[in-house]
Amino acid sequence: MSDSPVPAARLSERPIGVFDSGVGGLTVLRALRAELPAESFIYLGDTARLPYGTKSGHTVARYALQAADELVEGGIKCLVVACNTASAAALPALQQRYAEIPVIGVIEPGARAACAASRSGRIAVLATESTVRGGAYTQAIARLRPDARVTAIACAVFVALAEEGWTDGAVVEAAASRYLAPLRAAGPDALVLGCTHFPVLGQAIAAAVGPGLRIVDSAATTAAAVRQELATRDLLRSVGGDTPVVELLATDGIERFAAVGGRFLGAPIAPGTVELIDL
Amino acid sequence: MSDSPVPAARLSERPIGVFDSGVGGLTVLRALRAELPAESFIYLGDTARLPYGTKSGHTVARYALQAADELVEGGIKCLVVACNTASAAALPALQQRYAEIPVIGVIEPGARAACAASRSGRIAVLATESTVRGGAYTQAIARLRPDARVTAIACAVFVALAEEGWTDGAVVEAAASRYLAPLRAAGPDALVLGCTHFPVLGQAIAAAVGPGLRIVDSAATTAAAVRQELATRDLLRSVGGDTPVVELLATDGIERFAAVGGRFLGAPIAPGTVELIDL
Repeated sequence: MSDSPVPAARLSERPIGVFDSGVGGLTVLRALRAELPAESFIYLGDTARLPYGTKSGHTVARYALQAADELVEGGIKCLVVACNTASAAALPALQQRYAEIPVIGVIEPGARAACAASRSGRIAVLATESTVRGGAYTQAIARLRPDARVTAIACAVFVALAEEGWTDGAVVEAAASRYLAPLRAAGPDALVLGCTHFPVLGQAIAAAVGPGLRIVDSAATTAAAVRQELATRDLLRSVGGDTPVVELLATDGIERFAAVGGRFLGAPIAPGTVELIDL
Repeated sequence: MSDSPVPAARLSERPIGVFDSGVGGLTVLRALRAELPAESFIYLGDTARLPYGTKSGHTVARYALQAADELVEGGIKCLVVACNTASAAALPALQQRYAEIPVIGVIEPGARAACAASRSGRIAVLATESTVRGGAYTQAIARLRPDARVTAIACAVFVALAEEGWTDGAVVEAAASRYLAPLRAAGPDALVLGCTHFPVLGQAIAAAVGPGLRIVDSAATTAAAVRQELATRDLLRSVGGDTPVVELLATDGIERFAAVGGRFLGAPIAPGTVELIDL
């Protein structure tokens, strides 16, 4: 029968699908590859419609479902929503739609990392406009640690700076100082980078807030959550099999994806290796 | 017969359609309203898919045709493509598709303004990545003034700064200084703001390049070109008729459109007056 369940042994050979609005999610792919070196990955960046961070939750959810359909139809064993904005707007809808595979977002792991890093319970969240407006981090942190006091700041310009490759210098310092001024009064001891673009600005952000503040992002904790989930379901790929493969797909501007993406992946992307798809 | 031509007398009562990728084109609408106070306007900002400036020409052209279809089906007497990126990528295609009405972009008027402002023929163009890559300004200026030497600089971060409302202060000054450094050697005497977001940053840009450089944008010259074209075709609305109306449509985030758009239109936009449409 054509729709009989795939045996777990074969299912485990499938790639892990990673979805993002663009290149920022490559920081999550980088952490996933470090955590799970035997796995294959297929990464889809919806570059034709980025950024998601300034759009409404309704529109972001619609785009996320279209992109996820593409990955799931291609055959994946697990879906990672690397985009904070899409995780905040669409994770329950995605988990309901693809109930047969684990669907993991970055908000919950990021909130967990922040709670673990904070002693005082005063936590700062830097994210996109849409993520801050939706309150997903604040709610996730409150569930884990009801006494926490969260200061969430929307930092739209950081996305443009990261995409432009301006990760240090006067512009980044001035932008960080302007965005982070409210933190002086709030006095957090942990700060979560709630957008996949922000880790490349981590040093400038750390310099702007001064010592004594622990900066965490979702990438490493998300990768750990994916490993845990695959282990539980006996879906980890065995070491020593075929060489793992990383496929990169984008909905627009594949040359730009390769040029800009290397900065986020932490390794150069050869031009010609990114495949253009239409959603 | 249902498809008989509309008499010019009735056609002149129709609104002028203005299309942009988002809120930046409201700087062009502002100039149009000042130049043509008796006219009605219908403005469509494709906020669900902005920004166009980092996307491929092919994708921008596809989006522009969809948006223009919506305006033309609604009944307009003239289409103004306020977005530089869409003008650069799609103007010939739009003019061919809607041959029955004037279709006016902002590149040609902007190039004309730059040529008129320059004595030396050394002209700077600040625009989005897509507009610079396509070379539309450089080509338009070369047609008008073959001896001109054009320095075109892609300034993606300016779009984010304008959208964030950061129009002065340390961040804008540092960004302007960083982008405009190459102009010190090129020594232009005229600079065209080749993106509708940039006029709100005009003062900071002027300060960064120093005195002796004339800064022009497409808005006023585009408005003059529209007046000229309507006058030639006898399509100007007569003064003293019904009160002119301005309709604002957006494909996403109508609250954000109203909040951010006022800065570009130069007048507040009341929440609830922007209509959400789907393309």
